Amino acid sequence: MTSFTLTGTGVGRQAVIGPIATVHTSVDVDPDTVVTRNGIPVPADKLPELIVGAFNQVEQDLKDQAAGASGSVAAVLAAAAQIAADPALRTKSTANLAAGQPPVAAVDHAVNEFVALFEQLGGMMAERVTDLKSVRDRVIAVLVDQPQPGVPHLSEPSVIVAEDLAPADTAALDLTKVLAIVTELGGPTGHTAIIAGQLGLPCVVQVRGVLQLDDGTVVAVDAATGNITVNPSDEVAARIAAKRAFDTELQSDNAPGATADGHTIDLLANIGTAADAVRAAAYTDGRLVAGSGLFRTEVLFLDAPKAPTVEQQKGEYAKVLTAFEGRKVVVRTLDAGADKPLAFATQPDEENPALGVRGFRSARLHPELLTDQLAALAQAAADTGTKPWVMAPMVATPAEARDFAEQARDYGLEQVGVMIEVPSAALRARAILAEVDFVSIGSNDLAQYTMATDRLRGELSDLLDAWQPAVLDLIAATASAGRELGKPVGVCGESAADPLMALVLTGLGVTSLSMSVGSVPAVRFSLRRHTFAQCEAIAHAALAAQSPDEARSSVIALLDPEVKAALVA
Amino acid sequence: MTSFTLTGTGVGRQAVIGPIATVHTSVDVDPDTVVTRNGIPVPADKLPELIVGAFNQVEQDLKDQAAGASGSVAAVLAAAAQIAADPALRTKSTANLAAGQPPVAAVDHAVNEFVALFEQLGGMMAERVTDLKSVRDRVIAVLVDQPQPGVPHLSEPSVIVAEDLAPADTAALDLTKVLAIVTELGGPTGHTAIIAGQLGLPCVVQVRGVLQLDDGTVVAVDAATGNITVNPSDEVAARIAAKRAFDTELQSDNAPGATADGHTIDLLANIGTAADAVRAAAYTDGRLVAGSGLFRTEVLFLDAPKAPTVEQQKGEYAKVLTAFEGRKVVVRTLDAGADKPLAFATQPDEENPALGVRGFRSARLHPELLTDQLAALAQAAADTGTKPWVMAPMVATPAEARDFAEQARDYGLEQVGVMIEVPSAALRARAILAEVDFVSIGSNDLAQYTMATDRLRGELSDLLDAWQPAVLDLIAATASAGRELGKPVGVCGESAADPLMALVLTGLGVTSLSMSVGSVPAVRFSLRRHTFAQCEAIAHAALAAQSPDEARSSVIALLDPEVKAALVA
Repeated sequence: MTSFTLTGTGVGRQAVIGPIATVHTSVDVDPDTVVTRNGIPVPADKLPELIVGAFNQVEQDLKDQAAGASGSVAAVLAAAAQIAADPALRTKSTANLAAGQPPVAAVDHAVNEFVALFEQLGGMMAERVTDLKSVRDRVIAVLVDQPQPGVPHLSEPSVIVAEDLAPADTAALDLTKVLAIVTELGGPTGHTAIIAGQLGLPCVVQVRGVLQLDDGTVVAVDAATGNITVNPSDEVAARIAAKRAFDTELQSDNAPGATADGHTIDLLANIGTAADAVRAAAYTDGRLVAGSGLFRTEVLFLDAPKAPTVEQQKGEYAKVLTAFEGRKVVVRTLDAGADKPLAFATQPDEENPALGVRGFRSARLHPELLTDQLAALAQAAADTGTKPWVMAPMVATPAEARDFAEQARDYGLEQVGVMIEVPSAALRARAILAEVDFVSIGSNDLAQYTMATDRLRGELSDLLDAWQPAVLDLIAATASAGRELGKPVGVCGESAADPLMALVLTGLGVTSLSMSVGSVPAVRFSLRRHTFAQCEAIAHAALAAQSPDEARSSVIALLDPEVKAALVA
Repeated sequence: MTSFTLTGTGVGRQAVIGPIATVHTSVDVDPDTVVTRNGIPVPADKLPELIVGAFNQVEQDLKDQAAGASGSVAAVLAAAAQIAADPALRTKSTANLAAGQPPVAAVDHAVNEFVALFEQLGGMMAERVTDLKSVRDRVIAVLVDQPQPGVPHLSEPSVIVAEDLAPADTAALDLTKVLAIVTELGGPTGHTAIIAGQLGLPCVVQVRGVLQLDDGTVVAVDAATGNITVNPSDEVAARIAAKRAFDTELQSDNAPGATADGHTIDLLANIGTAADAVRAAAYTDGRLVAGSGLFRTEVLFLDAPKAPTVEQQKGEYAKVLTAFEGRKVVVRTLDAGADKPLAFATQPDEENPALGVRGFRSARLHPELLTDQLAALAQAAADTGTKPWVMAPMVATPAEARDFAEQARDYGLEQVGVMIEVPSAALRARAILAEVDFVSIGSNDLAQYTMATDRLRGELSDLLDAWQPAVLDLIAATASAGRELGKPVGVCGESAADPLMALVLTGLGVTSLSMSVGSVPAVRFSLRRHTFAQCEAIAHAALAAQSPDEARSSVIALLDPEVKAALVA
């Protein structure tokens, strides 16, 4: 078999080999589509049989997939299988056909009648609408002889290939069988990349042509280089194996995060749920991370028709605090809007949601969302006997920082901070730090605004490079303000996960790094092999550069040789 | 009559008194709407007559308006009147009614049939589709007894009131009869505000409740305070008259822009068309402005199905260069995208167009748009024997600046610069200035990105304040780089038009200010009454502030008393 290489943008540095399984998106099928087999239109008298057969096949496929899955994935698939089994859908579809409708329209209308009915009934029934639509898309796909849309059933550990992954796709994936995620679109700081990081999976985005590969094709995925090697040679396979062995070795080191000369850097995990917290707290031997530097609370609110109650939130927060057993946990209040729309708190029809009413700004319109969160967190802290840190996203001015700090302290929360992700906040970090106890730099959004380049778009990724010297200027300004005031300055964007950038950030005066848990071992390895003075020299070289490439190469020139050999592709 | 005051955000500082005329937006009328008169449904046998009457009324109204207008406005109205006169529309509408359609649907379907036909015919006929739709919306409005949508006919000089003005509305306005523009929505740096500035009209945006006022109500509009005084008292009227007298006095001073001690600041006009250029060049005695600091070339491209040819562009550019007779003209290359979508150069479905492929970035996808512009400008320069300056918008890095400069110099253009409107460009202004001959700060976009706050939204206007110290930090960094390298640094956003901010900018080291032409007299007045050392002290005070209010008030405390009395509300 010919071996060839596709290249994209890698996220993280892990590597893996396995067969691919593609997530097909549901295609719009014209309702008048003529159904053919082998290029020949199916005769009218065979169509009823074909429709019933399509329902049968989808029913059986979903049952098989449910049987092969476990937990919530199995439940989702079983529920869809039950819908596909409903004889009423078959009867109605064939009746529509008999009434003169073309076959695709016949199925479409039949299912839509039930969709309307379920929506009218509301409650539990309305929740089944997603399943109905999924069954419809699958049956129509079978009818017109195309691959069934949705997440594939994984019979063996596989590399997931997709145009891009929707959050719902991730929920339906059997994560125990996912080796890596590769997407044709997406950006290095987009949601697929973040989810992959949280799951500790290698990920490569923007791989043009990857959707052309057949399911089952074996590929080597190397996130460090961004290379997808199709039908890898023995030599490539050996290189990947060596990388994996080295990663395993790194994971066995569980010393606290620090430079070679003992300058401490808290290494923390980014989390979104209590399950993430349990996974991160237990990673390797359970002492690898010093806590969580970013608990994204909006995950609890996504897909909810209304905000969870104080009681519900308190329960979830207490689980997270308990998982970390008194280690540091930095809770970020709701960051709704932009790429994370919430049904109850997002402004409709914003032309530029990333520049709109999001993060702390939402409290202008929905003050109760913030106060409920603060109340729930304060109660969870009391219940668990822990002292969580709390911070607000999208703060732009010292006045906003003061406002948030007053509210949080009114609820008895003691460690209060804000995110530095708006350029103005970095430029005025000294005045902001005077109002709060700590700040945390959100390097992804900070780069987005500093470069005026959307995180969600791939075409401009050269501008969005975390090594852009202008972005480093703002991080340096923030860290310098922290040093001056003796207050902690963390970084919780993807920059923190890059073992080379981690040296730059440390040298600039950043005091903690929060990242997807799978990135911690390499960052700790890199830090432990450089002194703080070396980190300062490395930071200086990066700031003196005129371009991201120059910044990266001038840092590489100053690296410890062992780190360079292990981590630089 | 009771006098009361509504307050919004003023743009500029002019004041005026006059009756209001409202621009009604076309409302969606349900096709099944029951047509009533005095609350009673109109009997079926009277409906055909009512429909024909509505067409007659719209036809007559449009004819009247056309007769009262002149130039392109008259042509637009006459063309629409001709459509409304077409008997086929009446016949088809009443036929639909006879066939059982409800009256609104009958008109809607009749017109839509012609829309489809005209679109099919293409060319000249397709261009009439907008008129057809306008006639349809007007006839339906008359039918359901609502105000006709669209720009009102102005029989006397009036204050235009609107939700917000679309560019098409402005084209249909008889500008000779517009005294001021007041909007319920819009932002202080949005398009309505920019257009008002270009026309030298007072403008107040975000005036809640203004749409409730009846046409003909007399209001005093004061852009300096943002107050709309309804039924103004004699005292208010006298104050407005005094302000207007003072403005006239300011306009009679035509000394070049400079501080009291002779430090020169070029005072320039922002323009979008050759007509703007002629108006600006001739403003007061024709020597008031030292040229144009911002020629927005995209106006030439708006509403065009494809880009104008090199020949067409050359003609337009030559007209602008000729109008200024050798004075400085800074041409900005196409800034498509975001709030200025062009049919042929805008990326569809960008989630955040302001952070997307716009400005110089468009050349990545459409390099010929840029090279055609540069070729046309070089030819216009040769034809007119002038030396225009040229600059690219949305440049983020020194590498992009170098790329643009190389291309522009290849066409023989000698004064090549870039806009500083992305925070990274301001942070790295020294490296960017090393690549080009000059820079111009776009303060509106720079504030938008620095504060991560959309210019098009009103709710967050406190964050978007041009006096935000963080925005001033970036202007200061850019000006400082210019001083160091001895290269010009202009400002061409609305900041330049504020006579107090102009002192701050001058003190920071900015060398030219480009603004809507109507703002020039007050800025020159303010500059002439302060020394450069005073401007430096004023700039220092603004930078030392912690908030926009503090910045503004600390500047006011240092103002020359005469300027304070005249310009501070």
